[in-house]
Amino acid sequence: MDNLTLLTDLYQLTMLYGYFRSGMDGRRAVFTMFFRQTPGLNYAVMAGNEQLRDYILSLRFTREDLGYLGSLNLFDGHFLDYLKDFRFTGNIDIVREGSFVFPGEPLLRVDAPLAQAQLVETALLNLIGHQTLIATKANRVARAAQGDRVMEFGLRRAQGPDAGVLGSRAAAVGGCTSTSNVLAGRMFGIPVSGTHAHSWVMSFPSELEAFRAYAACFPDSCLLLVDTYDTLTSGLPNAITVFRELREQGHEPLGIRLDSGDLAYLSIKARKMLDEAGFENTLICASNDLDEYLIRDLKLQGARISLWGVGTKLITSADRSAFGGVYKMCALEEDGVLMPKIKVSDNPDKVTLPGRQELYRLYTSNGMAAADLIALDDEEESLTKPLTIFDPKDTWKRMTLTEYSVRKMLEPLIAGGRPANELPSLKEIQAFRQQEEKTIWEQHLRLVNPSAFKVDLSDRLWQLRSRLLHGRGRDV
Amino acid sequence: MDNLTLLTDLYQLTMLYGYFRSGMDGRRAVFTMFFRQTPGLNYAVMAGNEQLRDYILSLRFTREDLGYLGSLNLFDGHFLDYLKDFRFTGNIDIVREGSFVFPGEPLLRVDAPLAQAQLVETALLNLIGHQTLIATKANRVARAAQGDRVMEFGLRRAQGPDAGVLGSRAAAVGGCTSTSNVLAGRMFGIPVSGTHAHSWVMSFPSELEAFRAYAACFPDSCLLLVDTYDTLTSGLPNAITVFRELREQGHEPLGIRLDSGDLAYLSIKARKMLDEAGFENTLICASNDLDEYLIRDLKLQGARISLWGVGTKLITSADRSAFGGVYKMCALEEDGVLMPKIKVSDNPDKVTLPGRQELYRLYTSNGMAAADLIALDDEEESLTKPLTIFDPKDTWKRMTLTEYSVRKMLEPLIAGGRPANELPSLKEIQAFRQQEEKTIWEQHLRLVNPSAFKVDLSDRLWQLRSRLLHGRGRDV
Repeated sequence: MDNLTLLTDLYQLTMLYGYFRSGMDGRRAVFTMFFRQTPGLNYAVMAGNEQLRDYILSLRFTREDLGYLGSLNLFDGHFLDYLKDFRFTGNIDIVREGSFVFPGEPLLRVDAPLAQAQLVETALLNLIGHQTLIATKANRVARAAQGDRVMEFGLRRAQGPDAGVLGSRAAAVGGCTSTSNVLAGRMFGIPVSGTHAHSWVMSFPSELEAFRAYAACFPDSCLLLVDTYDTLTSGLPNAITVFRELREQGHEPLGIRLDSGDLAYLSIKARKMLDEAGFENTLICASNDLDEYLIRDLKLQGARISLWGVGTKLITSADRSAFGGVYKMCALEEDGVLMPKIKVSDNPDKVTLPGRQELYRLYTSNGMAAADLIALDDEEESLTKPLTIFDPKDTWKRMTLTEYSVRKMLEPLIAGGRPANELPSLKEIQAFRQQEEKTIWEQHLRLVNPSAFKVDLSDRLWQLRSRLLHGRGRDV
Repeated sequence: MDNLTLLTDLYQLTMLYGYFRSGMDGRRAVFTMFFRQTPGLNYAVMAGNEQLRDYILSLRFTREDLGYLGSLNLFDGHFLDYLKDFRFTGNIDIVREGSFVFPGEPLLRVDAPLAQAQLVETALLNLIGHQTLIATKANRVARAAQGDRVMEFGLRRAQGPDAGVLGSRAAAVGGCTSTSNVLAGRMFGIPVSGTHAHSWVMSFPSELEAFRAYAACFPDSCLLLVDTYDTLTSGLPNAITVFRELREQGHEPLGIRLDSGDLAYLSIKARKMLDEAGFENTLICASNDLDEYLIRDLKLQGARISLWGVGTKLITSADRSAFGGVYKMCALEEDGVLMPKIKVSDNPDKVTLPGRQELYRLYTSNGMAAADLIALDDEEESLTKPLTIFDPKDTWKRMTLTEYSVRKMLEPLIAGGRPANELPSLKEIQAFRQQEEKTIWEQHLRLVNPSAFKVDLSDRLWQLRSRLLHGRGRDV
């Protein structure tokens, strides 16, 4: 599955065919991707830009692809010939990976000939949506762990190999510090972690022998799973025995892992037993169906856990299985002029923003993000002090900024069909995400009932939207 | 990502290293995969066998893999040399794709040298778990649609490319009749379907012109999306105009698609308008956040929908994002003898079944499945009439079968590291699933509160488990 050109919905190709036959395929079009406000998705951590870029750059129909499309009896030969040379030649501007983003704002902008901008929709939503979903979930989990390290353990429960590997990458972007996934480790340089399973213990005549055999292999990184038979009466005493033997041989043990039972109770008891045996510096690692809520509660209850292994609920974002991003046309060339486009809906939340947009983040003098501003693409110079911004729905909610700085959020990813910039490494993305996290007030990142981060419209964009909405019959 | 050998948890490799160093890697081991009873997962539709086979057959560490593993400073050179020639040489027996399977029973059995049987755990659970999850969800959706066709539309919301492509395959196994996913169509021969999006309509000066342009491209398969502006006052009248023009040109239109609003109300109104205009044979296709529960309710409310497009909630199995399958050791060679193994747990539901098991389905004379029986692998000849089976937890729940036939459920997939049988095509799997579905009583497949299908243990297996549980200290 290296070539993902056919990773698209059939309707993208039937529309392409229609645009081709109507002579519209080369018209300049602008689309944006955004996500809508829904409970529990108040912010997101952007991820997947690198995979989107790779997809765009490798976009071409192979001979097999064209043979298959021809076999569908939907398209004529002229169109199949046209697809032979099909490449993406346009521009994509995108918010940097690791950025904190908010509902309703453009996360990326595609500016390309209509046929190209349309074709990429499906894979773009898939790649960015999936990784942003998992990066966001990982960030919530890491925030609940309050600085403790979080290991991503989800591969076996991920929705297929890509979901495991790309999900592991996204989890690292969002805040996980290591992964169990060896392939993700090799591909992206994420630190890998892992020790042994219950089956290891079951393979030996006794737990003590299993622990000894493990310690013999890994004397300097010995972390033992202590709940195969009974955590407090068997696993811990056996682990302590082996830890003492290790120390006599000049090695220091790493710690233990708990994978069942009451993790608050067991970790407190285990900490006491380990400390009393003189192993104050050992780690207690915990896993078993963890998510941000359970971690928060375990910490509230005094759990002595230093390292969290989070699997299924992180890698599948179990309480929200899809990001729900959408990709909408906002401008289309007509008679040589780029005209704003709006999608109207009975549901006011589904009315889209028209025109070729930019996204700006406004910072107050303490370095904190005060609001985001969506403006038309020619408004940058008018962002002069002081600036009054207002809520696009409740327009009486206003805020005037006098001292502020402005950051343009959409940066070139693809320009004229080619890579626009060198991409940051995963480590750089992680460092960037950490920095960014400090610029967002805590109340916007709260796990439950967060306060909404302001995403406002420029006056001109607001006016344009109102004009198009009221003059629907003509402008839409 | 063609070579998935590193698609594993690091702990599989650290354990491999340990088994290698302890000289245990070549001992014969038997593992089974099963899933536990949880609310809403009373049955599953088996899927993913083909991808599991491909993974097993391509298992080998590349030079890059070994270079990466060496860089971790966890393993010695002897072990890395050993991995160079590592292949899967064992046996895998598995329930056929498209089978209906139930909690607690072995879906597959791996019988291989310990190192091999252990290494494959992660990818095996990932591949079988993901596809079985989606096939099961698709089956629930298709059952709710009561014979109407169901199109799988989820690619854009899937958790990465594989989740879209393999998910589409699994959805076809479970009961979907087509997909929007062109790559899945090419790879697996699934029929592809799709027409146009709202953006098509927005690209033309008016909805009528957009419809005419689409009809000109696809005069014999014209299905129009009618909700871009207003379904009943704009979309349907424009569609009917274009349908009349098509008919005058000698073509018959296919139908319309609804993608928002009250699908029950709108489909009833639309049916009436289409019928009155003389288009009684047109289809009404509906989409918009559908799942089995919404389809069931829409049908109860008289919706006139002939074709269902199901996306996000199917392709991510939104209300159950992971199958939760587990893979447990049940036997291990000790001093040349295969000894049964059991994993004990405080939680009785988590105690595993020991010994090398077979799974049998028992059919009554009307061809319906009466129960499944898990037995030890040498009991087949004792399955003679009459047979009394009993519930493994509530042993007073007994049933005696006098006239019955027996089917062995685990069939060879891999024998001695090689493909054991030719695999069925996707079409054959779909036909098999349809046949199988007729052998399971409806009450076991109900969407809510289904009655549990009987999965019983043979008397000898039950005795063995009891003996190992009571004699824990020695046998485990």
